[in-house]
Amino acid sequence: MPSEREFIEELRSRFPPRSPVTVGIGDDGAVLTVSGGAETVVVTDMLLDGVHFDLAATSPALIGRKAVAVNLSDLAAMGCHPEAAFVCVAVPDLNRSAEMVGRLFDGIAELAESRQFTVAGGDTNTWNGPVVISVCLTGRPLGPRPVLRSGARPGDVLLVSGPLGGSLRSGRHLTFEPRIDLAGLLANRLDIHAMIDISDGLAIDLHRLMDASGTGAVIDAARIPVHPDVPAAGREGQAGRVQAALTDGEDFELLLAVADDDPNLPSFVESRQLYPVGTVTAEPGCRLRDESGEHILAPGGWQHG
Amino acid sequence: MPSEREFIEELRSRFPPRSPVTVGIGDDGAVLTVSGGAETVVVTDMLLDGVHFDLAATSPALIGRKAVAVNLSDLAAMGCHPEAAFVCVAVPDLNRSAEMVGRLFDGIAELAESRQFTVAGGDTNTWNGPVVISVCLTGRPLGPRPVLRSGARPGDVLLVSGPLGGSLRSGRHLTFEPRIDLAGLLANRLDIHAMIDISDGLAIDLHRLMDASGTGAVIDAARIPVHPDVPAAGREGQAGRVQAALTDGEDFELLLAVADDDPNLPSFVESRQLYPVGTVTAEPGCRLRDESGEHILAPGGWQHG
Repeated sequence: MPSEREFIEELRSRFPPRSPVTVGIGDDGAVLTVSGGAETVVVTDMLLDGVHFDLAATSPALIGRKAVAVNLSDLAAMGCHPEAAFVCVAVPDLNRSAEMVGRLFDGIAELAESRQFTVAGGDTNTWNGPVVISVCLTGRPLGPRPVLRSGARPGDVLLVSGPLGGSLRSGRHLTFEPRIDLAGLLANRLDIHAMIDISDGLAIDLHRLMDASGTGAVIDAARIPVHPDVPAAGREGQAGRVQAALTDGEDFELLLAVADDDPNLPSFVESRQLYPVGTVTAEPGCRLRDESGEHILAPGGWQHG
Repeated sequence: MPSEREFIEELRSRFPPRSPVTVGIGDDGAVLTVSGGAETVVVTDMLLDGVHFDLAATSPALIGRKAVAVNLSDLAAMGCHPEAAFVCVAVPDLNRSAEMVGRLFDGIAELAESRQFTVAGGDTNTWNGPVVISVCLTGRPLGPRPVLRSGARPGDVLLVSGPLGGSLRSGRHLTFEPRIDLAGLLANRLDIHAMIDISDGLAIDLHRLMDASGTGAVIDAARIPVHPDVPAAGREGQAGRVQAALTDGEDFELLLAVADDDPNLPSFVESRQLYPVGTVTAEPGCRLRDESGEHILAPGGWQHG
């Protein structure tokens, strides 16, 4: 396979935006701008048994919940709230499938209730294959406009919305709270230059944000909030915990770039709703700074000696 | 499993429409009405290897094409044209997968070009399972409003947009032309009371249309246009060919209800763009009339003696 980045670049050039699509492939979601200027944002994600969840070890309600929650996280990263979900499911044709599908929708209904959206369509199929659940979710900006990945500027401060690492190991990836509410506060009180949700790990998602913005970044290792789900320092010491925070993924926290002097920023930092982790640079590439100096931060993390 | 109808009814009551969703689960697509009154229609369908296509026997381009075409057919049934597609794919992690995914998108690109929409997002995954392709498609009304299933009235004439039957056997299900252009003509020149696309067969889709409208129907067996793909009459004679037209499915023609005296209707019938097949009745239930009288028409077809 080509790299995911190459593949997405090829699709981007093959399917450029055309009216009413104003933002197409390559961000957390697409933006459709209809007559009158109203902007609808659409996100989508497919979850597969054995890849994104383990049906044998997980309640169907948590699987349904996760399938929608990862899409809510994408919407949050666009600074949007959800309106309508479309849920396609494939399940084995077994006697217990009806009950399982009902429980998948229990998990979806819980989020629909708490986040005030509805399921407006879908498609349920049976087959001789593993469980698949594919969700498409529409939303609308919480602030004046959708927030894209592409607006970070040199000198911006980079912040994350919570501690990172250990999500898959602890099961947090099934129960995390998508940052919709926080995104609403941020979108209305800050001038967010760029935002993404951390689905594959801070290191790779930082690269995506900087690539889209045509910028680079320096991250302070000591400022990365490491989640308590990451085991206490073992053989690799604190560096191993930082590496976990950079690369474990499935955190579904927000990573954003904001002007260093944004007047409303300090209150978010003081209340620990946001954690500053670094700075945007004009020079491309990502670096990690620790007590021993600056290291190249690759999408897969960094090699420490 | 409960019947599909029971399952959809349960989901409908569980997830009622809420703003901006004005039409939710239970039609060919959902309708979202944004500020200013612009209506966006969203449809979705998931296709599975071994159920909706056979990867071993079919070119990936035709599979990609079908995955989008069935959604275009749903949009046509809502009287809409397409704007933005979202394509989620799961493929085996094999060396040839990159080429296969590229060819899936070849088939999608062909339709995107001819139907003037774009792919605005998606999700591509690899796994140890069969190929899955799930498409969500947004669109906008070709006429003044989206066309729903629920507006048929007693006395309306029922029409189909083309001959039926034999689609799976002949491979037509992979190459059919979704009726978007015709839907545009119809939506602007007729007062369409109700419309659906024939995906599972005239018999079952007629039931869906009549159930949504709270009406019944009488179909004239002799007036059903039988596709040449249905083999010439064999042991079961002409009745067997009509049964194939009623139940084979995957025709992706339109079935609509229009007032009997609509002044623009005759020209569509004379030009063989529409074929009258029956009449809407106040009495619920569907019946089939042939030379031997009236028979109950079940969703699965009719029993002939």
